[in-house]
Amino acid sequence: MKVERVKGTRDFLPEEMAKRRWVLERIRETFERYNFHEVLTPTFEYTDLFRLRSGEEVVKQLYAFLDKGGRDISLRPDMTSSVARLYVSAFQTAPKPIKWYYIANMFRYEEPQSGRYREFWQAGVELIGSDRVEADAEVIALFTESYLATGLEDFTVNIGDRILLDEFAKMLGVEDDIGLMRLIDKKDKLSREEFVKALRDFGLGEEGVEKVLSLIEIKGEPSEVLPKAEELFTSEKAKDEIKRLYELVDLLDAYGVSKWIRIDLGIARGFDYYTSVVFEAIAPNDLGIGSIGGGGRYDNLIEVFGGKPTPATGFAIGIERLIPILEWKGLIPEPKLRPDVYVIPIGNEAELKKTAVGVVSALRRAGVRADVELTGRKLRKALDYAGKLGVPYVVLIGKRDLAEGRVTVRDMETGEQRVVKKEGVVEEILTLLGP
Amino acid sequence: MKVERVKGTRDFLPEEMAKRRWVLERIRETFERYNFHEVLTPTFEYTDLFRLRSGEEVVKQLYAFLDKGGRDISLRPDMTSSVARLYVSAFQTAPKPIKWYYIANMFRYEEPQSGRYREFWQAGVELIGSDRVEADAEVIALFTESYLATGLEDFTVNIGDRILLDEFAKMLGVEDDIGLMRLIDKKDKLSREEFVKALRDFGLGEEGVEKVLSLIEIKGEPSEVLPKAEELFTSEKAKDEIKRLYELVDLLDAYGVSKWIRIDLGIARGFDYYTSVVFEAIAPNDLGIGSIGGGGRYDNLIEVFGGKPTPATGFAIGIERLIPILEWKGLIPEPKLRPDVYVIPIGNEAELKKTAVGVVSALRRAGVRADVELTGRKLRKALDYAGKLGVPYVVLIGKRDLAEGRVTVRDMETGEQRVVKKEGVVEEILTLLGP
Repeated sequence: MKVERVKGTRDFLPEEMAKRRWVLERIRETFERYNFHEVLTPTFEYTDLFRLRSGEEVVKQLYAFLDKGGRDISLRPDMTSSVARLYVSAFQTAPKPIKWYYIANMFRYEEPQSGRYREFWQAGVELIGSDRVEADAEVIALFTESYLATGLEDFTVNIGDRILLDEFAKMLGVEDDIGLMRLIDKKDKLSREEFVKALRDFGLGEEGVEKVLSLIEIKGEPSEVLPKAEELFTSEKAKDEIKRLYELVDLLDAYGVSKWIRIDLGIARGFDYYTSVVFEAIAPNDLGIGSIGGGGRYDNLIEVFGGKPTPATGFAIGIERLIPILEWKGLIPEPKLRPDVYVIPIGNEAELKKTAVGVVSALRRAGVRADVELTGRKLRKALDYAGKLGVPYVVLIGKRDLAEGRVTVRDMETGEQRVVKKEGVVEEILTLLGP
Repeated sequence: MKVERVKGTRDFLPEEMAKRRWVLERIRETFERYNFHEVLTPTFEYTDLFRLRSGEEVVKQLYAFLDKGGRDISLRPDMTSSVARLYVSAFQTAPKPIKWYYIANMFRYEEPQSGRYREFWQAGVELIGSDRVEADAEVIALFTESYLATGLEDFTVNIGDRILLDEFAKMLGVEDDIGLMRLIDKKDKLSREEFVKALRDFGLGEEGVEKVLSLIEIKGEPSEVLPKAEELFTSEKAKDEIKRLYELVDLLDAYGVSKWIRIDLGIARGFDYYTSVVFEAIAPNDLGIGSIGGGGRYDNLIEVFGGKPTPATGFAIGIERLIPILEWKGLIPEPKLRPDVYVIPIGNEAELKKTAVGVVSALRRAGVRADVELTGRKLRKALDYAGKLGVPYVVLIGKRDLAEGRVTVRDMETGEQRVVKKEGVVEEILTLLGP
């Protein structure tokens, strides 16, 4: 009987795993330089936790089930709810701001497609306890630098604003502002014609449609498009928010990341819990991959989970979106999976095998990635195996060697062999491998 | 509304997370020096995969459920089944042996107790494709060195043997050899009286009970107890297996780990799939924690999953068992969670904030873990916060400083302040922090 992998999930083999680790370590280092600290919450939570805050879509996509104790639990679809729970349970009186990061897997029952799996990884941060634009700038600068740390340069971080979208809905006299945001969010998936039709179906008149089309034109270099926003919006609240966007963009310039920053007022970011700034990263690619990460400010969420009103802002990087793009651009170094040395006892005598094990142990203790023949195969086959692995050096231990306290070191590329004293083999190998 | 964490699960806060990472990295480095390579399989699999091979107990403890597509899936209770599936699906013709490791979370619906959670982590290896004693020695040596790499020294690796237990059952004329093994496995949880009673209830007569009591006495230094095993067992098969144990112990001596090796023929290791050598690590502790990891040879398992007969051997280290013991012994270094520098703009002017951000960015680019005031609080409160965090140096940026292109560096321990040129602040801080 053969059992397959479940749809929408993957196995990571050594090469891919090593590459993923390289990417995650670059991101982790960046998070830590910004003084964020790692936390981890359980893989599953009470389904109520996710029900409390998430858009309908997420609840529909939950891996929800009853455990053997009858608890209604779900695999986490993202980390923000769990982090908010953690904050409310024990950190309300801790010094602020709290700067947490996570690198973890999430689960959503969605149709698999390019860069989308039912189990996927996110690297994200949450900054809790500051309502200031400085906090948004810190988080967006870190977001940008995280991608830069992986070697990616051809991407933009597009910034939108939920307050402006709200004000826009009010300006248009639209009651269902969430509905309008959802619609605007889908703009890139529709042709202009389809989009206009969808707006009319939503109930907008000619003028309303025109205004939406102007809004989504507010997209590009901040210095070019923010003045357009000032023209489009009239309310005080909107003006204040635009002023805040100017401050944000100025601070991001001071962080040295303005090259990657764009404004795009047509971004809403699906989830209902964002309250002002929202942002997402886009990297041009031929792989059909859209956003490679996003985030925003969510000042009401902590309350939803029973905490005192507490401002917060954060982001998540989609690892399954980012890695294919990095691979496609050749930005991830080829991992070294082969051992540096392979030790082969020539024969099956106990003393030969023990000497081989002694040599491989001494090499490993010296920090060398070393392996030893473990299948009892003959010399020729063992050398074939070493060749397939691409091992640069082989240590051969024969009966005569043993009697003389010597071993043979073979350079697999040149075929050159040198006989060295058993005690000197670690030094010999270290010399050959170089620094 | 407040939602709690689910029973048997935990949140890992920054300090604990940093300590876990330290432990896992020590283990990972050891695995890699032995030339094992990391793989990762999905968190959930078809329940059938686990049903195929596992003891009843594991199936009862599965987090099993139907997904939205009606698939009967389960969270993995261990990695071995998934790794076997992966091997069968794509690696049957790959060069042998295959040496894989994993560091991943598992799920079992068990009653939580000391060192036991419903979500827990294991670091383990599987060596597939060698039936030789050399492979067992390699895996047991790595098992031992993995604990040593975390600083643990007071532990033993106890080796048992399923073939000997089988032969023993035959010798006793017991049909239900699995039942007998389960019983023997529980010996440490029962008093001698209870154990004898359980053996009688199982159907053993006086002589049988005596033999079992002799068997479980075969426990201790290999050189002392293996001769006793030679006396107890009479069959050829048992004699061959004892010879193999001698070879194993000899090889482990050549690996330099014999100090930690003991024989304990009373070990069966619950799971039904082990076929010969089994082993587990025990570290004396006051925390009520038993085995901190274990493994063994499983030569029939690949077949169970539809592969060609393929020998394999491996182990898993229980991270939730190991870490409390390391903590209790004070073996995990205190992680550094504070930033090295905290930059405070004195005032709310845009130029001050931008300069602060410029300084913190320059420091971070130089590899310094640096933070910047993000809440707009006054100087005194900002310094209080820096004090609570234990930051050694603060950079203050005031209006006058700014006009003169200078910043103030304050040593938080001595209170000493130095005014330096803005351009020189990174160098100044690097000098203060030292290498």
